[in-house]
Amino acid sequence: MPEVNRRQAFVLDGAMVLDNRRGTAPGLRIEHRGTTCFLLPGVPHELDYLATTFLDPWLEERGGDIQLETTVLKVACRGESAVEEKIASVYDEFGAEAVTVLASPGEVRIELRARGGAAERAALLQKMSDRVAGFLGPSVFTRHGDQDLEGVCGELLVELGATVATAESCTGGWIAQRLTATPGSSAYFLGSVVAYSDQTKVALLGVPAELILQHGAVSREVALALAQGARERIGSDYGVGVTGIAGPGGGSEEKPVGTVHLAVSGPRGPEDLIHQRAVFPGDREKVRRMTSQLGLELLRRRLLDPNYRPGGW
Amino acid sequence: MPEVNRRQAFVLDGAMVLDNRRGTAPGLRIEHRGTTCFLLPGVPHELDYLATTFLDPWLEERGGDIQLETTVLKVACRGESAVEEKIASVYDEFGAEAVTVLASPGEVRIELRARGGAAERAALLQKMSDRVAGFLGPSVFTRHGDQDLEGVCGELLVELGATVATAESCTGGWIAQRLTATPGSSAYFLGSVVAYSDQTKVALLGVPAELILQHGAVSREVALALAQGARERIGSDYGVGVTGIAGPGGGSEEKPVGTVHLAVSGPRGPEDLIHQRAVFPGDREKVRRMTSQLGLELLRRRLLDPNYRPGGW
Repeated sequence: MPEVNRRQAFVLDGAMVLDNRRGTAPGLRIEHRGTTCFLLPGVPHELDYLATTFLDPWLEERGGDIQLETTVLKVACRGESAVEEKIASVYDEFGAEAVTVLASPGEVRIELRARGGAAERAALLQKMSDRVAGFLGPSVFTRHGDQDLEGVCGELLVELGATVATAESCTGGWIAQRLTATPGSSAYFLGSVVAYSDQTKVALLGVPAELILQHGAVSREVALALAQGARERIGSDYGVGVTGIAGPGGGSEEKPVGTVHLAVSGPRGPEDLIHQRAVFPGDREKVRRMTSQLGLELLRRRLLDPNYRPGGW
Repeated sequence: MPEVNRRQAFVLDGAMVLDNRRGTAPGLRIEHRGTTCFLLPGVPHELDYLATTFLDPWLEERGGDIQLETTVLKVACRGESAVEEKIASVYDEFGAEAVTVLASPGEVRIELRARGGAAERAALLQKMSDRVAGFLGPSVFTRHGDQDLEGVCGELLVELGATVATAESCTGGWIAQRLTATPGSSAYFLGSVVAYSDQTKVALLGVPAELILQHGAVSREVALALAQGARERIGSDYGVGVTGIAGPGGGSEEKPVGTVHLAVSGPRGPEDLIHQRAVFPGDREKVRRMTSQLGLELLRRRLLDPNYRPGGW
C-alpha cells in the first residue's frame, strides 16, 4: 500500500468518517462551535457519491417543508431556439424564473422549478410539465430528467419484448456503446457491426458491393442496407443503420462534411424501413455525437409508432 | 429564424464582434474606461473556441516573456498512488509546486510547470519531463498532454502500416468508438463486432460454442477467441478482444462484477496472442471505461514491443 493511501486513513479529532464506496479517500464531517463542516474528496464521481449520500440528506433535513423542487423534460435532436419558441407561452404563464432551457449537442433540457410546500409544488410541477409536454408532443423523450435516450429506447424494447442490433459506420460503435450503457441491456441488445471499411460492410452485413459503388458508402441506399443487414445478420427484431462523413476530411460539394444517412429496419419484413438524412455542423466529435443521438431518436420514434415517418415534430 | 437568434445579433455600442465558428452566439469585446471586457457565450465548446481564439492571444500579448508553461505526461491503467510513489523524488528535486498528479478513471496526468523566460522554461520542462519519463518508462503513453490513448494507438498503427479490428462484449463498442474518434482512423481501423449475445460471438466471430459452454463467456479462452475472430473475420493485422461483467448484475463468487478478460492478437499467426485479466472496482460505467482503456493500452504496448507480456510496468 503506497504511503498516500495510508494518509487517507487519518481522521481529524472528533470527526465522523463518511464511508466512501467509490474509492479509497473517505469524507469527514466535523462539528465545531456550532458549524458543521463536510470534507469531501476531489475525484468527481467520489465527491458525487459522498455528497448525494451524506450531504444532501443533511441539507434536506434542515430545509423543512418549504423547498425548491425541479422537474426536467428532455428533447432530442431539436434546436434550442425552436424548443424555446414552441414553449414560449409557458414563460408568460408561470414566469421566466420557473423555466430554464439548456442545450447540449443533440439534446435540450427544459427545467421547471416550483417553490413551496410539498403538495403545492407537486401540483404546480405537474401542471407545468403537462403544458410543456403538450406543446412538444412525442418529441419529449422523458419527463424524468435522470433518464437518458438510450435508457428510454431500452424501456420501449422491454415493453415490446423486442431486440435491436446496430450497423454503424461513422459513429464507430457509439450507438451500441450507449445502448449497452444501461444495466440489463443484454435483454434487448444483441450486437453491432461497426463497418468502417467498405469490405466489412459487404462481408459482415451483406451490403451489396454494387450499391456502395453506385450510390457511395454515404447514401440513403447504403443506410437502408445497413439497417437491414444488422437485423438479418445479428437476428434482431429492429436494426439501426448509420453512415456519414464525420470529417474533417472526406467531404465533397454534393456530400459536405456532416452529411449523415440513418435508417431503422423493423420486424414487418424488408419493406419495414424508415430513413432520415441530416447535415450536422461542427467538428468530428460533434457530428458523431449528433448522429448517435439521431440514430437512437429514430429508433425511439419507430418503437413508439409503427407508422412513424421522419420529418415533423 | 426564431426570435432568440435575432437577439444574438445585437451588438453593444462600440463593441468588437468575436466571430463564433462553432455556433450562432458571437462574443463581444468591449473597451471601457481602460478596462477590457470579454463577453462570451455559455455553451462549453463555443466558449472554448472563442476563449482560445480571442482571449488567450490577448492575455499572452500582455504576459511578456515571463510566463508559466506546462507540460503534461499521461499514463494509462495505473493507480494514482503508485505513480506518485514512482516519481516521488521529482517533487523533492523540482519542488512540490512544480508537479501535480491528477487521476481520472484509467488515466493519470502528470502536470509539470516552469516559470521564467522562454529558453529557461523549455530547458527546465525538458529536464523534468525526462526525469518523470525515466521513472515511469513505457507506461507513459504521451509526453504531449493533448494526445489521447486512442490517438497514440493510431499513430503507432500508421507507423507500422498496420490495421486493427475489435471484438467487444462488455464494452459494447466503446473501444471502436474511441479508435474512430481520431480523424483519419479509416486508414488503420477496419471495423468491429460488438458481440453482446453468445450467438453473435459464434455466428459473426467464429468463437466455438463449446468454448463458451466450457469456460463461460467471460474467460481467458473466449477473450483470445474474440481477438482472433476480429482479426480473421474483419481481415486486420491486429485484433482486440474484450469480455467481462460490467454489472450491476451477472457476478458470481468466482467471477465478481468487474471481472474482465482482454486479449490482443497479432500478425504472426494464431499463436501471436497476449491476454490480461483484471477486476475493476466501481459502477457499470467505470468498469466499462476502465476496460476500454485497458484494451487500448494492451494494444499500444503490443504495437510498441512484439514481445510484450502484460503485468509489469
